[in-house]
This record gives sequence, C-alpha cells and structure tokens, in this order.
Amino acid sequence: MKVCLVQKNCNFTIDENISQSEKIILEAAKKNVDIIVFSELFLCRYFCISYEQKNFDLALEDNSKIIKHFSNLAFSNNIAIVFPYFEKRTQGIYHNSVILFDKDGSIAGKYRKMHIPDDPGYFEKFYFTPGDLGFEPINCSLGKIGILICWDQWFPEAARIMALKGAQMLIYPTAIGFDGKDSKLEQNKQLDSWLTIQRSHAIANSLPVISVNRVGLESDNKQKIKFWGNSFVCGPQGEFIEKAGYTEQILFVDVDLNQSEKIRRTWPFFRDRRYKDYAEISRCFIDT
Amino acid sequence: MKVCLVQKNCNFTIDENISQSEKIILEAAKKNVDIIVFSELFLCRYFCISYEQKNFDLALEDNSKIIKHFSNLAFSNNIAIVFPYFEKRTQGIYHNSVILFDKDGSIAGKYRKMHIPDDPGYFEKFYFTPGDLGFEPINCSLGKIGILICWDQWFPEAARIMALKGAQMLIYPTAIGFDGKDSKLEQNKQLDSWLTIQRSHAIANSLPVISVNRVGLESDNKQKIKFWGNSFVCGPQGEFIEKAGYTEQILFVDVDLNQSEKIRRTWPFFRDRRYKDYAEISRCFIDT
Repeated sequence: MKVCLVQKNCNFTIDENISQSEKIILEAAKKNVDIIVFSELFLCRYFCISYEQKNFDLALEDNSKIIKHFSNLAFSNNIAIVFPYFEKRTQGIYHNSVILFDKDGSIAGKYRKMHIPDDPGYFEKFYFTPGDLGFEPINCSLGKIGILICWDQWFPEAARIMALKGAQMLIYPTAIGFDGKDSKLEQNKQLDSWLTIQRSHAIANSLPVISVNRVGLESDNKQKIKFWGNSFVCGPQGEFIEKAGYTEQILFVDVDLNQSEKIRRTWPFFRDRRYKDYAEISRCFIDT
Repeated sequence: MKVCLVQKNCNFTIDENISQSEKIILEAAKKNVDIIVFSELFLCRYFCISYEQKNFDLALEDNSKIIKHFSNLAFSNNIAIVFPYFEKRTQGIYHNSVILFDKDGSIAGKYRKMHIPDDPGYFEKFYFTPGDLGFEPINCSLGKIGILICWDQWFPEAARIMALKGAQMLIYPTAIGFDGKDSKLEQNKQLDSWLTIQRSHAIANSLPVISVNRVGLESDNKQKIKFWGNSFVCGPQGEFIEKAGYTEQILFVDVDLNQSEKIRRTWPFFRDRRYKDYAEISRCFIDT
C-alpha cells in the first residue's frame, strides 16, 4: 500500500488550503498513491489557539460543498483520502473529525476525536464535543483502518481497542507544536515523548502507525505555537520507515500490512493478554 | 530516592548468586541506596530455556531460609530489596514472583507475574501458573511501587492499572535476550522495541520506570540466549536518566518521584481518559 503524508504549513484561508491540497492530491495520484493523509483540521489555521465564537463559522456540515469536492477528488484520482475537518453536527454540537473517502469517492466512515485536550493555546474543550462514535476502525477498499486524532495518541486504550476490532493500521492526523517559552531540552523531551508513545502503539499492537503533523508558526496575541512536523510511518515493531523533519515535506511511503502476521507469530502479545483482569481500565481512578 | 539496579551475569549455583548479591547489597548500603532491584529469577540460570521437571526443585516456599536471609539483609542494611524468585506455592502450583522487602526487613508485598510468555527458549507456561494477585502496587516506606515482571512490559494495560491504583513508579525485573540466529538488524529492532514500550508506560502514566535485565550467554543443547542487559531508569516523560550497556554493570540512580505531579499538570492525560468507552479492553478480541 502506497501512502502519502502531507506535512505542510497552513495557509490563512480555507480556499488557499483547498487549492494547494488539490495540487498535492493530483501529484500523489500520478505516483499511484493509494491513500493520502492530511493533518488535523488541515483546512484551517489552528483556531483553537484562542477563544473566538466566530471560529464556529469555519465548521463544515455534512452537506458542505467542500466535502463533496474532496469526494470528487478521491473518485477522479482513484485515491483514498484521510480528510480531517471541523464538523458542525447541529447548532451547539461541533466535533474534531475525520472522514475517510474511499477510492471511489464514497464515504467509507467517519471518526470523531474522543480525547479532547485543553491547555493554554489548545482550547479544544471550548470548540469540540468529545466524540460519540467510539473507537471503530473504518472498512475501506484498502483494509480496516483505525483513525485517531492528535490527543488520542497519548492513550494506549484507543490504539488497543482499534486493534482488538481488527484495525490493520493506525493513522493519527495531528497538530502539535512547541511553546517557545520552553527550553530546547524540554522541547526535545516533548517531541521524543510524542514519537515514543505512538511507536509504542505500533509495538503493543503489532501494527504500522502513520502520524501526520503540520509545520509552521501560528499565533494570536497571547500564544505562539511552532508546529513541530516530524510526521512519520513506523512498522509493527515501532521501527521508523520514514520520518520528516521540522519543515514542509511530502512523504511517499510503501506500507506492508502483511508484516503484522509475521510479527504477531514471533511476539504473540494478543495470545497472552489477561483480559479478564483488565476491568479497572474502565475506572477514572481507583481510590484507596 | 536512591535506586540501585543490579545488571549481572548469572552464576551456576544459587549459593554463588546469593553470596555475590549479598556483597552488592552491602556496597549499595554504603552508598545510602534506598532500594535495590535484582533481575527476574536472579538466583537461577534461566532454566525456562528447556523443559526439565527437576527444575521445579529450584523453587522457594514461603518459609524458605533464603527468603528469611534476604529479609535479614534488608533489615541489617536498612535497604528495600526487590527480590524476584521462583515461588513454590504448593505441589503443582509455581509462580514467577517478586517479594518487596521493606527497609525493616518486613515483606511489604508480593507480585506474581500475570502475563506468561511461551516461545522457543522461554518455556514459561510449562513452569509458571499465571499470577492471581492482579495488578496491585505495593505500599512500602518509600511509597507505592508497581512491580511487574518481564513479559508484562509489553502490555500497556498492566502499567495503566498500576497507575490508576496510585503507583508512583514502575519496576520491571526482566530476563530477555537475543536469539543468535536473528540478524543484527532484527536484534536492534527488538532491543529498541523493548526500550520503547517501557518508556511509553512512563509517558502514558507520567511515572518513572525502572527496568533491570540480566546479561551473559546461557544455553542448553538446543537454545542459546544472549541476555541483552540495557537496564535503565527513565523519568515520567520517558527520558533516559541512566542506561546500562550489554555487559555487567551496577547503576546507582537518583529518582525524583515529585516530577510526576509537575508533568501531570502539563500533560493531563488522566483528566481526559474516556474510561466509560474502554470496556472492550476486557475482551479477548472483537469478532466482526
């Protein structure tokens, strides 16, 4: 399976992002890419950097022309598209979502971000209702794909449930960056934690993992985020297959879904899970 | 908290291992170590390399003189001891266990390995009944310590439940090595997977993790295992604090349990867990 990861700066308008993305899709199609992955909320500057009611205007409804447009792009280029977007479900209910368009332009499925962060510069709880679709891999012509979004990547439970439901790979569109006030040492620790936790989901579940982040500096008058890129693909032992740096980069990567069978025979973690002893995972905390 | 990690070759007899370990405990006590950690089944060559009924003779019962001896060593040196051993519980029930001796020589608690591997050269299912004590951190004078053993390290559920029950750090005595038949590339992948998955438990749970492996070549007439060492301590962002190489090494490391509070404020994963949506973790697999 040939995958394209689009690590780019975000332009200021949705229109600019659409036309740029369209060109990248055409380029990818020429290279026979099977699935192209954009980063979290890739059509918009990272508006969660501040509290602004008018930002809700950026959200797309199911019948949006933009969604139809990307469906057409998938169909006319015979390419599956991981399309992260700001979803307006109804008045007062908005989600941070992904649509997976199959190669024929049909909507293979949708994922709504389950774990919502809320930190200075990442005011997501103001904008997004936590997802209510659970952790469901999406069936498409390429297989069963577990799509999760950004903050989800810190929770081993999300990756595990996707794997238990038969996901053959995990894809994390994301938007994460450095706070310029942190030291270089602290920044490096954070980046390495981010790479390590995602690679660990590959290892624990013997699955390839794909993560796509944006790059560039975005700011309002209070916050500055330097999105750190470092999009990557790793194999089912967590080994890097390709990794981008800190600047704009489009990766074209061959991913072999058959490796998992081999790794799961050598490292049979799923055989040995003590699942009857895991009930406490479903608790908030166990007070003593 | 000052921790000592004992990464060593295993001698051929239990007596040799006891007297060597005793010397190391005395040395550690001189350096004001609070807790010393030995590797999995450190009193015995890794007998699970083959199927031999006579190996059950190596197991210790609760009233064993050896257990009493280590209790005395803890008391007389004012040092807590993580004591991994082959436990005989009754005829026909043996466990791969750890006793935590507190500084006063009392038994603070016991952990019985929950996840039991079974692979060529690691025939543990022949020897060990899977643990029935669950994932319970052990309270001692130094705090609440989550002790897990070797194969447990591949299961994020084990680390998570320990953290949800208030563990302040995780300790993994282990015995894992290379199969000489694997390529160097494959060996490096395996070692890196092992380091990465354990560091990920530190990250996901914002806790320090300590892992202690043996070194040396052990073999029977069919199998050879080159135990890979690489014992380490990492902090709550998964950052290495100290790491050993492939040969005998005793590490003395200061571990700061107060870092977790700071990290959990900056990276509040526990605030955002969707624990009501994790019930499927308790399933073997979800067939579709």
